[in-house]
Amino acid sequence: MADTVELGLDEVDTLARQVLERNGFAPAHVAAIADLLVRAQYDECQSHGLYRLLGMVAAREQGVVAGDTLPTVHDQAPAIVKVDAHGGFSPLAFEWGLPSLVAKARQNGLAAMAINHCFHFTALWPEVERIAEQGLVGLAMTPSHSWVAPHGGIRGLLGTNPLAFAWPRANAPAYVFDFATSAVARGEIELRHRSHEPLEPGWALDAQGQPTCDAETALAGAMQTFGGHKGSALATMIELLAGPLIDDLTSAQSQAWDAGRGAPPYHGELVLALDARMFGGAIDAEGAERLFAGFIEQGARLPSQRRRAARERSYANGYVTLNAALVQELRALA
Amino acid sequence: MADTVELGLDEVDTLARQVLERNGFAPAHVAAIADLLVRAQYDECQSHGLYRLLGMVAAREQGVVAGDTLPTVHDQAPAIVKVDAHGGFSPLAFEWGLPSLVAKARQNGLAAMAINHCFHFTALWPEVERIAEQGLVGLAMTPSHSWVAPHGGIRGLLGTNPLAFAWPRANAPAYVFDFATSAVARGEIELRHRSHEPLEPGWALDAQGQPTCDAETALAGAMQTFGGHKGSALATMIELLAGPLIDDLTSAQSQAWDAGRGAPPYHGELVLALDARMFGGAIDAEGAERLFAGFIEQGARLPSQRRRAARERSYANGYVTLNAALVQELRALA
Repeated sequence: MADTVELGLDEVDTLARQVLERNGFAPAHVAAIADLLVRAQYDECQSHGLYRLLGMVAAREQGVVAGDTLPTVHDQAPAIVKVDAHGGFSPLAFEWGLPSLVAKARQNGLAAMAINHCFHFTALWPEVERIAEQGLVGLAMTPSHSWVAPHGGIRGLLGTNPLAFAWPRANAPAYVFDFATSAVARGEIELRHRSHEPLEPGWALDAQGQPTCDAETALAGAMQTFGGHKGSALATMIELLAGPLIDDLTSAQSQAWDAGRGAPPYHGELVLALDARMFGGAIDAEGAERLFAGFIEQGARLPSQRRRAARERSYANGYVTLNAALVQELRALA
Repeated sequence: MADTVELGLDEVDTLARQVLERNGFAPAHVAAIADLLVRAQYDECQSHGLYRLLGMVAAREQGVVAGDTLPTVHDQAPAIVKVDAHGGFSPLAFEWGLPSLVAKARQNGLAAMAINHCFHFTALWPEVERIAEQGLVGLAMTPSHSWVAPHGGIRGLLGTNPLAFAWPRANAPAYVFDFATSAVARGEIELRHRSHEPLEPGWALDAQGQPTCDAETALAGAMQTFGGHKGSALATMIELLAGPLIDDLTSAQSQAWDAGRGAPPYHGELVLALDARMFGGAIDAEGAERLFAGFIEQGARLPSQRRRAARERSYANGYVTLNAALVQELRALA
């Protein structure tokens, strides 16, 4: 176990904001990005918390990502809002498009927000939770870089392509899941590389397409999808829906665009919102609540359960635990 | 390998229609159901082809499924069409709702069709292919009976909950996948039970929640989801979207409603259609075609590839191969 350090919740927030402010991000971006990273950190998701600031700052220093360009929101179609991030990080684009997405979903029954030309570097679950806070069902997906081999393949073609879903509940926090269609998140492999820990079998291939459990070899090779050909199929769906459907790049195109600079993926994001009342249904229908109860009754963990427990623990404790070396690095950037 | 028999393509179609006609299905239902079963049979999908007629006829004989009740189509919201199947099989409801789904997707950018109170007993890929034939991207999902244990659980709670996706291509057949979120389709376990073949590890649990490879024990126990907790999460999404969202039953509620009669699942279906042009994108964008080519180049099979090859082979041969005992049973019903 690496050396850790405890940071008060306010300190986490302040550190995130300071790093972003001192590294060329406009105030609106600072607020939107810090909000997402801090939520992930409170949920004890190390791979999507403050750790991401390192890559964000590196991408700013390379001049790849715009820190002060503001998104533009476009009323694309009765059920579609498009937001052009103009080469900035995605959180502010999501923030500015959300009211229109919510209004369009309530009006039409369902609606889509397509974010274009963004760098996506954060978890999706805080986004779908925001949709659920409005009483709507939320779905979000993005491609990434082509780090992941298709099932039966030998080299990177697909992204880690996360899929997030939120179902609002009347008397409980929303039911939320957010998973990479790769066997694990890219950040997990990076963290194991940093801490010199081996990977699990089934996570990655070397540059020749053979299985490997070495993180460095894996970073030079390809990751694998979860769930064999089904996970691979789901990853292609996300490539297509959050790419060509919305006039943006696939993971392979994002990787080619990056030209070896190692910047975060540059692409689009597709977000859907559905209004159960407009469908004649109800979020608090008996079937939904019995489904959630059915997990607990047989000792299965609900997808959002561990993260919720972490969040409650963080708020109860008033602090979160971070890798000490990471905090040192971040303080040097703040 | 069981004894097989070759049937000409017309014979397959005629046999399906005769079985349905002689067992109380109205002409409109006969046409819609036979069309789907025959497509599956031509694609050499034994578990979703004419085999399904046995269960359909049994359900009619039990008086569970309506054979002559026609669906009603309701303009639910600007982007939603609802179709009430009134206790009939789903194919005719899909057929009658499709024109409105297509029109609403073209008008709004995306749209949903919610089918209620249907028995769903066929594959989803022929449905999403129909959407792709209109130049639209299609998604479809249904719950089933609660045959599947959640990840980490010990007994049935989720359905086999298939997810199907189709992406139209300008100069090639649509890219299509259709997979159960259970480790395999229920029909595959039933077929292995009929042929006394063992199951693969990871497919099923016995009634005590322990792994089993015996089909009979599995049918009395629970199936497992594909891909661990991620497949399990995806299955919950399908429960919620094709259940409470559209005011219909979850798999557990469908199972309870069945009350041990062993009839096909009774529930809803959610179908989405998205228009790439309205999103500012294009189905034949370079990124999409390079994604498909990328599979082939590295020796990975595209999800729809094997089924397409089977279809081409069936049309070239002019016949398909079926289990001889099945054909005998069906002829006795025709």
